[in-house]
Amino acid sequence: MITVGVNGYGTIGKRVADAVTQQPDMELAGVAKTRPNFEAQAAVRKEYPLYAAVEERIELFEEAGIDLAGSVTDLVAESDVVVDACPSGIGADNKSMYESFDTPALYQGGEDADLVDVSFNARGNYSAAAGASHVRVVSCNTTGLSRLLAPLQERYGVEKARVTLVRRGGDPGQTSRGPINDILPNPITIPSHHGPDVNTVFPDLDIDTLGMKVPATLMHVHSVNVTLESSPTAADVRDLLREESRLFLVPESMAIDGAGKLKEFAHDAGRPRGDVWENCIWEESISMEGDDLYLFEAIHQESDVVPENIDAIRAVTETADASESIATTNETLGIGL
Amino acid sequence: MITVGVNGYGTIGKRVADAVTQQPDMELAGVAKTRPNFEAQAAVRKEYPLYAAVEERIELFEEAGIDLAGSVTDLVAESDVVVDACPSGIGADNKSMYESFDTPALYQGGEDADLVDVSFNARGNYSAAAGASHVRVVSCNTTGLSRLLAPLQERYGVEKARVTLVRRGGDPGQTSRGPINDILPNPITIPSHHGPDVNTVFPDLDIDTLGMKVPATLMHVHSVNVTLESSPTAADVRDLLREESRLFLVPESMAIDGAGKLKEFAHDAGRPRGDVWENCIWEESISMEGDDLYLFEAIHQESDVVPENIDAIRAVTETADASESIATTNETLGIGL
Repeated sequence: MITVGVNGYGTIGKRVADAVTQQPDMELAGVAKTRPNFEAQAAVRKEYPLYAAVEERIELFEEAGIDLAGSVTDLVAESDVVVDACPSGIGADNKSMYESFDTPALYQGGEDADLVDVSFNARGNYSAAAGASHVRVVSCNTTGLSRLLAPLQERYGVEKARVTLVRRGGDPGQTSRGPINDILPNPITIPSHHGPDVNTVFPDLDIDTLGMKVPATLMHVHSVNVTLESSPTAADVRDLLREESRLFLVPESMAIDGAGKLKEFAHDAGRPRGDVWENCIWEESISMEGDDLYLFEAIHQESDVVPENIDAIRAVTETADASESIATTNETLGIGL
Repeated sequence: MITVGVNGYGTIGKRVADAVTQQPDMELAGVAKTRPNFEAQAAVRKEYPLYAAVEERIELFEEAGIDLAGSVTDLVAESDVVVDACPSGIGADNKSMYESFDTPALYQGGEDADLVDVSFNARGNYSAAAGASHVRVVSCNTTGLSRLLAPLQERYGVEKARVTLVRRGGDPGQTSRGPINDILPNPITIPSHHGPDVNTVFPDLDIDTLGMKVPATLMHVHSVNVTLESSPTAADVRDLLREESRLFLVPESMAIDGAGKLKEFAHDAGRPRGDVWENCIWEESISMEGDDLYLFEAIHQESDVVPENIDAIRAVTETADASESIATTNETLGIGL
């Protein structure tokens, strides 16, 4: 059994903790949190051992009547692997702590690629993380692009990818974020960080990305163009992508027109929190114009990296190869719409 | 003097009517409207002769205490040119009426290209409309793309254009339109109608377009990629585009991050209704990656076709050439931010 600690119990951390408890080869040492908010209280109800992420705030938990199992260093000491799901930049601050315990750590995509030995995507470069001490699970958007580009690259070759990422302004709980009623080039300069980030997984891929922000909270939507090195039919591409376990081809018959219905479909399917772990690619959108592939895909920013974190735990501990780990993760979570 | 009638007094029609009154070579015969709503009442306050667009509704205007100058056929009879700014599809219904009076008509971009002799953009194909009886001023998005692609095509040659149009869900007054909090591929299939529509102005241009809809009302924003036939620097492209009178390069120093600030800037400049007649291209976004040009531009869906309608009036009546007409329209409206 791999003992896993989760440092940071917000949007990603709480999902990873839940997923860890569903794995046959893992146990959850506990979770660390900075504040005794509703998420901390939910962790208590789930009987997850709760640790204070910041020593000085232990008192706040006591005042809220929440029993702590200790502080974050106790959690790290107990863990074979730590998943750091702290806000962007805090992971970098935590690195020396993980090193002092000689505990391998997984960071999230908000950290710099320079912080770690390997930037990770299960479909893209699983084996690169074998035995690494510091691994970064790339961001939701980069995860989505990596899953899509890996099979295209392998089967057809990618001459160039050009992607416009229309990003939700914030998550449903991030009430201080905008925009309201606007469409923002974000960043205004080109490329956005996503293209270079994809290159941390696929160093030789030619990709330009443009980012925008809009008043939506549910999912990101990508407008994807990939100029291929060969000229398959759209049907060929659909067949190829349909074989990928973490790509869901939204059939026309479902009459799903956007992120709202995708989330509703996930809720109806009984998924925890309505999570959509797969890239959702509109099947009718998959088109070829000469060598140019086009498609639209929706990416659930809160959850698509969760299975990747689980796979990364096995990758760094070298307890399963890519196909074994992906199969186990998919089966335990219920991936495959 | 060219006597101009405006049939349809909504978002476009009211702006065209105002613009006509500012032209030294035009006079407004009047405007036709279906309902005595706030816009009709505003027309009365401006002392525009008001005609009933539908004979059977004359009574409604009487009940609202609005004096009519007649019905739409009277307006057409008095006009040298009619600008049809009715909702999409109604223009087609009106065509036979214009023909029966032998009055040249301009339609808006919502009508089918097949309806008319020429689809028109002042920068793209002004002279094609000379003497035509039925001319379609292409839609806001196609107008924006035509203005941008014309100089690029002329100077560098366009190998292929790929554009993602992130469209506002509705205009500020269209309170029944969505989405709220969603990002919709729209249409889900590729291409959207915009690429083929650009081909009505530039028949030989290779262009693929993808459309999306988001919860915003202020402007559309385009994520543009143009693979050029030569490799200018980004600075070259900026200089080229800066010379175009209906392209506004938004300088970084203005700190304008989206459509909201663009509209606010237009209001501060005292523009009627905060209209933004120009394509607004973020200067910092203009980038070259090899032969690939990228940029972001915002398009004000309510107003960018207004100067094009004015130019089209001169084009069909053959009263000015392109450069004369564009210069007059720009000067009278105050185009050039």
